[in-house]
Amino acid sequence: MSRFFSDKFKTLKPYIPGEQPKSDALSPLGLPYIKLNTNESPYPPPPGVISAVSKKELELQRLYPNPEGALLVSKLAKHYGVLPENIMIGNGSDELLAFSFLAFFTGSRGGVLFPDITYGFYPVYAELFDVPYTALPLGDDFTVNINDYIGSGKNIVLANPNAPTGIALCASDIEKIAKSNQNQIVLIDEAYVDFGAESAVSLISKYDNLLVIHTYSKARSMAGARLAYAIASAPIISDLMKIKYSINSYNVNRLAQTMGAAALDEDLYYKEKQTQIIKTRKYTMSELEKFGFIMTDSKANFIFAKHPSLSGDELYIKLKARGILIRHWNKPRIADYVRITIGTKEQMDALISEIREILR
Amino acid sequence: MSRFFSDKFKTLKPYIPGEQPKSDALSPLGLPYIKLNTNESPYPPPPGVISAVSKKELELQRLYPNPEGALLVSKLAKHYGVLPENIMIGNGSDELLAFSFLAFFTGSRGGVLFPDITYGFYPVYAELFDVPYTALPLGDDFTVNINDYIGSGKNIVLANPNAPTGIALCASDIEKIAKSNQNQIVLIDEAYVDFGAESAVSLISKYDNLLVIHTYSKARSMAGARLAYAIASAPIISDLMKIKYSINSYNVNRLAQTMGAAALDEDLYYKEKQTQIIKTRKYTMSELEKFGFIMTDSKANFIFAKHPSLSGDELYIKLKARGILIRHWNKPRIADYVRITIGTKEQMDALISEIREILR
Repeated sequence: MSRFFSDKFKTLKPYIPGEQPKSDALSPLGLPYIKLNTNESPYPPPPGVISAVSKKELELQRLYPNPEGALLVSKLAKHYGVLPENIMIGNGSDELLAFSFLAFFTGSRGGVLFPDITYGFYPVYAELFDVPYTALPLGDDFTVNINDYIGSGKNIVLANPNAPTGIALCASDIEKIAKSNQNQIVLIDEAYVDFGAESAVSLISKYDNLLVIHTYSKARSMAGARLAYAIASAPIISDLMKIKYSINSYNVNRLAQTMGAAALDEDLYYKEKQTQIIKTRKYTMSELEKFGFIMTDSKANFIFAKHPSLSGDELYIKLKARGILIRHWNKPRIADYVRITIGTKEQMDALISEIREILR
Repeated sequence: MSRFFSDKFKTLKPYIPGEQPKSDALSPLGLPYIKLNTNESPYPPPPGVISAVSKKELELQRLYPNPEGALLVSKLAKHYGVLPENIMIGNGSDELLAFSFLAFFTGSRGGVLFPDITYGFYPVYAELFDVPYTALPLGDDFTVNINDYIGSGKNIVLANPNAPTGIALCASDIEKIAKSNQNQIVLIDEAYVDFGAESAVSLISKYDNLLVIHTYSKARSMAGARLAYAIASAPIISDLMKIKYSINSYNVNRLAQTMGAAALDEDLYYKEKQTQIIKTRKYTMSELEKFGFIMTDSKANFIFAKHPSLSGDELYIKLKARGILIRHWNKPRIADYVRITIGTKEQMDALISEIREILR
């Protein structure tokens, strides 16, 4: 820490993302790692997205992007049956989440509720921006008790499906929460919604307090592009824009906008890959069950699993030594668990075979 | 404004960037605009930067970028003769500036000084993050009086060259300011340093309170990529990293990192374009002088000019009607002026010929 750092942040504990080995990093076996630790898609973006990056587009990198991503926003609006003023793009979900915490949970807005086990960035935003928060315990089975949130009189953030558990609420539960907290923001982080859960986007027109955030990082195979979007009532979007224009006018890379717009013409490709990932998830779970693993009912592109005779930490370390990266948190309640991203069938077979060896 | 917006921001006045017409927007003459309003380079990135975006790189968009941009940072460190721990990359200068205001000027750090006429985003960051600030008046000739800053006992932000004036301080003046404020941060925003001014980067090893921010948006022809970097003592960089990891772990797009690294092998190309822009600036200034324009001594890729018989607003509006975008601010002291980006010789000839018509 420098002697210039504000006293406000001296105890701040930043988020720690999953390991991102350098492109040339090799496992102890001398091979590239099989990366099952940050919930990326194992499939490349579709050909239409790749060919959208033409030589002309690359030459146009000399120009700033459209600050609001007008073309992409109008395509997203069409895609979701909303108006352009209901959408704002961001440099990944994390940026939009940070803007939301700042805009809607600070000062007079009196803080926020979220589960004790959820995306680890929420408490970090709260600490950074002096937002009072309560982390409400999930049930023993890691489910959200929606009665904790109904009529809470507090702003709410829920990842749906939740991470790292993968468990999803149905849209009617989200509706009950939004309806019963009409003077509060209900933020639904739908990063993983495309792998079997119900989206709350269609509720936006009914509830002006509902804010849904989507990302291109998971189901759309574009984690490298840093692209996400918020969908909400026009006044909420306009407030988020005010924050954006007070931090970074040009927050989304030009090529990310181009690729993001092209991706909206590729529903067939994406649907096929999502179906494949769901199928591979089922297959992996049934194989891991045979080894005695206990797992949550994941609706995401990852599984959350523990083994009765192997600690989460041990499994993480042993798999890493064998060239497979998964995610483990040394945190209360979930230290026994690991989170494993669903890769290709071949990658999951490699995982299963290494776990078989480890358990031998 | 929504009814959910924090009271903290109800009077916040966001930054207003220069117009970015949609890619298909046409001027009243039915032609694409000549864009001389946001200080972009008129030249595309060099071929080596464009070819760095291979099909393989595009397919790898499925993966998150390295969160710290390890490869790019190590190349930048080599380029500037510093260590990787002296460098942090950001999603454009604006993001790094926002992080800096938050990290070093809030709370116990007691605020910041900057000129009254400078980059319009500085007071916005200050308002957003509750940073007390003083806008010190530039001289009547728009020069910075360095005595206002020497031994001020306050954190300092200076754009060098300054915007929108283009006037530069020499490195020895920056050194005097850094040396006499050793317990304060001296942030030098060198967005425009490559068009004839002296950089303070070589002073970093001597002054642990000096923080220099560079961008790829201007001289490196990559405004669309959203890429910038901070150079400073390791503890300052580590604090900025803490802020970044509390807002957005993966803040820089993967392709931006790839292109940014490739750009560092293209010094010859960039040097040639910088020389050309300086030459075109001289030429444009001498032509505008003939019309009676008064201009500052710009060391940037723009000129700051007023005409005795034409208001800034009038010139801006008349040029826009003729298909040329320039920048005008309706602000005290500079309302008579316009800022004109240096484009190609042909673009400047078009400008000169339209101004000739307007003055006729």
